[in-house]
Order: sequence, then structure tokens, then C-alpha cells
Amino acid sequence: MRKEEIYAQALEAHRRTRGKVAITSKLPVESMADLSIAYTPGVAEPCNEIKRNPDAVYEVTSKGNMVAVVTDGSAVLGLGNIGPEAALPVMEGKAVLFKRFAGVDAFPICIKSQDPDEIVQTTALITSSFGGINLEDISAPRCFEIERRLKEICDIPVFHDDQHGTAVIVLAGIINALKIVKKKIEDVKIVMSGAGAAGIAICRFLLSAGAQNVILCDRGGAIYEGRPNNMNWAKEEIAQHTNPSKEKGNLADVLKNADIFLGISAPGVITTEMVKTMAQDSIIFAMANPTPEIYPDEAKAGGAAIIATGRSDFPNQINNCLGFPGIFRGALDVRAKEINEEMKLAASHAIAALISDDELSPERIIPEALDPRVASAVAEAVARAARKTGVARI
Amino acid sequence: MRKEEIYAQALEAHRRTRGKVAITSKLPVESMADLSIAYTPGVAEPCNEIKRNPDAVYEVTSKGNMVAVVTDGSAVLGLGNIGPEAALPVMEGKAVLFKRFAGVDAFPICIKSQDPDEIVQTTALITSSFGGINLEDISAPRCFEIERRLKEICDIPVFHDDQHGTAVIVLAGIINALKIVKKKIEDVKIVMSGAGAAGIAICRFLLSAGAQNVILCDRGGAIYEGRPNNMNWAKEEIAQHTNPSKEKGNLADVLKNADIFLGISAPGVITTEMVKTMAQDSIIFAMANPTPEIYPDEAKAGGAAIIATGRSDFPNQINNCLGFPGIFRGALDVRAKEINEEMKLAASHAIAALISDDELSPERIIPEALDPRVASAVAEAVARAARKTGVARI
Repeated sequence: MRKEEIYAQALEAHRRTRGKVAITSKLPVESMADLSIAYTPGVAEPCNEIKRNPDAVYEVTSKGNMVAVVTDGSAVLGLGNIGPEAALPVMEGKAVLFKRFAGVDAFPICIKSQDPDEIVQTTALITSSFGGINLEDISAPRCFEIERRLKEICDIPVFHDDQHGTAVIVLAGIINALKIVKKKIEDVKIVMSGAGAAGIAICRFLLSAGAQNVILCDRGGAIYEGRPNNMNWAKEEIAQHTNPSKEKGNLADVLKNADIFLGISAPGVITTEMVKTMAQDSIIFAMANPTPEIYPDEAKAGGAAIIATGRSDFPNQINNCLGFPGIFRGALDVRAKEINEEMKLAASHAIAALISDDELSPERIIPEALDPRVASAVAEAVARAARKTGVARI
Repeated sequence: MRKEEIYAQALEAHRRTRGKVAITSKLPVESMADLSIAYTPGVAEPCNEIKRNPDAVYEVTSKGNMVAVVTDGSAVLGLGNIGPEAALPVMEGKAVLFKRFAGVDAFPICIKSQDPDEIVQTTALITSSFGGINLEDISAPRCFEIERRLKEICDIPVFHDDQHGTAVIVLAGIINALKIVKKKIEDVKIVMSGAGAAGIAICRFLLSAGAQNVILCDRGGAIYEGRPNNMNWAKEEIAQHTNPSKEKGNLADVLKNADIFLGISAPGVITTEMVKTMAQDSIIFAMANPTPEIYPDEAKAGGAAIIATGRSDFPNQINNCLGFPGIFRGALDVRAKEINEEMKLAASHAIAALISDDELSPERIIPEALDPRVASAVAEAVARAARKTGVARI
């Protein structure tokens, strides 16, 4: 379908139903007897139970299965800083995906402020109703500080999906792609285009997973320690752990001899000619949406062995739906206090492991978005890692 | 059923379902085609539509049918200041009643602060996701200030149900009770016990409705202008408009010759002997829950002509379910900017009018909580009043 048709249909569908999120009751409320259980006078007893034992809030309320999808509307899809109300359709969409993929109830909270202090305070003060916080579409580098501070304050998981969800899926894809080309993550040169929330987070996560040579590029070219222009504190920090040879120059310059290119940036930033300068059996993840950094046929013409994009109409779609539902499902199931590095790594490996060695091929390195096995596999792995690292409450 | 049995059943039911609130999707999310409409890429178009026309948020999102049920847990049922997490079962209950009675989606927001500034700021900053704010179980006199400030800041209705919802139903009952005893609200002496959120609000609302002689009592007896003890700013303010003869003394003293007694206080504060001192054809609303200020048979023995309580096992239950669902339904239907005095008065008259002159009797002054006509009758009256007073957006 053409983009214009999808847009028109989506607008019509949203108008018809007036949005996507509805509330239902898990207890019957038809008769006066029902009301005396679900509301007064009976409801006093679950209240008393929580007063006697604060952990009972997880047993007698919806908190333990409820995630807040929190945004300030500052970096929504490719639309930019459109504000909290215009961001609401995306947050509602995220909420219904949580339910669809992992049975997690989620509710959109669009904050009418772009001040990090106000966003942190507001989010922290509403956590009584929620078992987890999914931050969404908050611009970099503000999102790093907001997430860090919320993680410090809150006793429930705080997870910025644009960062970590994307990173988890990318690593899953890389694990399987490297199997095919028989290279190790410790040995490969990885060049990335895009130093926003996703770029920085993917970069950090690859380092967690053992990568030794990652070069992050932005519009100003390769980022290195001490680069004079276009830096911010997040880039300064990442520069200390990346680009060990301090390579300088533009993307084309540093891409030479790279084994992996990861694009989380803009259409057309790399060309067939540039791919030709990469190492043998190069891997290209061109994830700009809807128009990738390079189309699969162009990358193939340059010699790429494995190509992934963000789109469902090409093989190997890097789709966040593979990650966040199962990650939160696993974290909620064990009442995790946080979602830590080990839990995210476990998620990546669980996703990668769903492609058997027989199935594994350059056109199939990652499960499809609707693969029904994904969420439960991820949830189990995440819950296990939470227990292992001591952040599970049960 | 005995209270202990209801409590045990309620706890068991809440444990079984882990609370009451669940999220569902109004659009299908099964196939990739569904996802492209409900989520990316299609969702960008409803976002664009809101960016082009901010009012479209009411047309393409759930905002226009979504109410936040906001509390700080400071005055929950008869349980007192049990905090935001222990209050969650009540807020979830309120949310499911909204849906049950008027098709309004509502979501519990329990704020982890009892500082009025933080409550106001937090609530105001999350209004993007909501079409209305229902404040609940916030202690007096803090609730008055919190509501006033939120009404000033917010462009959506803010309504403290413990105050105004109760006041609306009480007035509906009084309208019909006065018809039976053939007295006019302008002429009667009304004595009230309880100067908390509900007491103050009922008192103010009776004055709005034309009452000339209301005496509000608290534990310190009758409140009058300049009373030296146990005052706060809300009582000082109400004292200027009530107790015109500056009657002093305890409840028994001022109850003499009263036409109406309204109790929103504590079990047993009035006796048969005290009722005997009231005027001919006295009206008693004993609304303390679950044990009323006086039981119906005791009030009758004192000569009361009409008796209402908060309980469903006696005639004439003053039940908030008769009010808030239809009031918000009406306000949301016309995208009202606020819920004003005229809209509340319209709600009271609509509820009262559901009891026909033929039906009207001392044991039937008000519809039953589950009367299916109530919410739509209230909604229509409220919407009409909103249009008439210029606060409707459509």
C-alpha cells in the first residue's frame, strides 16, 4: 500500500474509534452485590491489606501489570518535537502493543513540560499506580539524564525503549549475523551513523556485549575524544569508550574496512560505493524509517553479505515489538526493581536463539515481528536474569 | 451479608484478578496491516492532524473520553490517611464505575505526595492524556485549595467528587423530600453535622440552590463567624454565609426547630430525643457509612417524616454513583472547559425529576443506584447547562 493510503486509512480508523485505549473492569460490576465487592464497602479490605503489608499492592491491584508509557512529545517518530498532545496517538499505539504482545496493561502519560526536572518529578510522583515506566520519544541528550534520575528515584523498572529496546534487537540481529559470517564481536570494526538516543544506547550496549572497536558518527563525522565541534556531554562520554584509534573524517572515511554498518540516522547517508570499501562479508543494518540509509539492493551491489532494515517489506526487520513487550513481561513477572544490563543481554540472546542454526540465513537473522514465540521467550530469559542479578522481588 | 463476609469476599476477588483495571485496544492489532494503521507508519497521520489542529486530539485519541481519578490517599473512605498505594483499590473501583454507569474510561492516578503544590503541578502536567480530572479522597481543607488551583490552571473539567458529587445527590434528595412535606428550601432551617470536604461542599451548594438558613456543626458544635476554636480558613469562609442568627452550642442545641438534618460525620451523633426537638415533618439524611448518624427506625421514632442514608439496605440511598458518571458524561460530550454551578444544579434537578409525582413517597425520594435512566438523564441536563453557560466547546 502507498504511504498516502496508509496515512488516510489510519486517520480514518483513529477518527472512527476516537483513539485506541479503553478501560475495562476485571471484576463484574452489574449488581449491587458486585458493587459491594468491587467498590464500597468491600473495597476497604484490599486497602487495609495494603496498609498492613505494602507489597500486597502487587496482589490486589492492577499495579503489578501496569506500565506507564511516558513522553514529553519532544522526539516523536520522525516528526520531531510535536508536543505531548500530538504524541498521544503514538503512546496509545505503544500501550496497545504492550497488551497485544505480552498481556501487559499500559497507559499513555503525555507530560505537558519539556523541563527535565518537571518530567522526572511528575513521573516519579505517579509511580504508585504503575509497575514499570516505559519512556518514549524523549529527545537526546535530555532522555539520558531523565532516565538516569528516574532510575535512581524509582523502585520500579524505568526503561527508555527508543534507547534500550532498539539496542536489544540490534544486538540480537548482530549475534546471528556474525554467526553467518563467522566473525566475533570482539574482533569486528563497527561504524554507526546517528548519535541520538538510539545511536548512543546501541553503542553503549555493543560495548557491554564485548565490542572493542565502535566508531560513532554524526553529521559532523566520526566522534572522537576531544572533537572540537558539535559535541554534548553524552557524545563526550561515549567518545572515551569508542573510536580507539581516534579515526577522524566523515562517514565515508571511517567506513573503510568496517565489518558492520549500523544506521539510525537519515535516508541515503551511505552508497553502494561506500559499501564496497568495507571489509569482506560486510553487515549493514540500515534502520532509518521509512526510507533507510541505503536500500537492500544497493547494499548488496556493494558486496554486503547481510542486510537488515526497519521495514516489514524487506527481510530482517529490526522491530522494537520484538523487545519491549517481553522485557517488561519478564520484569513485571518477578517484580524486578530495575531492568539492568544483564536482563537486556539475556533478551538479545533469547531473540537470537529463536532462529535455529538450520533456519539461519542472510535473509533470516531475526524473528518476524508477529512471531508468537518471541515475547514469552524474552520474558523467561529476562526474569531469569533478574533473579540471577538479585533485582527480582519474587 | 455480614461485613466480615463481604470483606473476605472482596479481598479474595481482588487477589484473584489482581485488581480491577485493564487496558484494551479499540483498534485491531492482529496482523502487520493492523499494526501499520494502529502504530507505525500510519499513526504519524493522526499525530500530524493534531499538530495541524490541536482540537483534533479529541477526535483521534482517547483523551475526550478519559478521566483521571486522582488522589493522594489522604482521606480514603472511612480509613483515613492510608497513602497513595493503599488507596489504589478505591481509585480502581471508581474507574470501573465510570465505565459501568456512563461509558467513561477512567484511570487511577495515585500521587506519592501530600504537598498541595506537588499534587497540583503533577496533575496539571498530565492533563494532555485526559478529558477530565476527578479528584477523590483528598482531605479537607487541602482539597479545596487543590481543586481551586487546578480549576484555574486546567482547560478541562476538574471535579472533586467527595464534595460536589455528594452535594448534587443530597440536593436531589432534598428537592423531592421538600415536595412531600410541602416546604420551600428558602424557608427551611437546615442543620448539618460534619465540616469536612463533603460537609462544606454540600453547605455551599445548598446556598447556591437558595437555602437561607444553614447551620454547619463540627465536633466543636455550631460554626459561627468568629468562633474562637477549631476553625480553619474553609470554616471561616463558610461561617460568613451560614448561621445567620449566630446560634451557638452543640448539635443538640441548634437542632431544635430544624426542618432538615444532614449528617456527613460519624455514627450516632443524633438520637431519637434530639429528632423529637426538630420541626414538624422533619427530614433526616444520615449519611455516615456504614453506620449512620442515626438508624431509620430511631429517626422515625423521633417523628422524622423522611429518612435517607448512605446504605443500600434502607430506602433512599444517597449514592454518588447517581452523580459523577452522568456529570462527566455530559461534560465530556460537549467538551466542557469546566463543571460549573449551573451544571451541578441541572444534575440535581435531573435526578430528582426521575421520580414522578405518582411514585414520590417518603420511602422513594431518589432513584436507585442501578437505575439505568440516571446517567443519561444527568448527562443530557449537564450538557445542556454547559452549552447555556458558554463552557461547552462543541
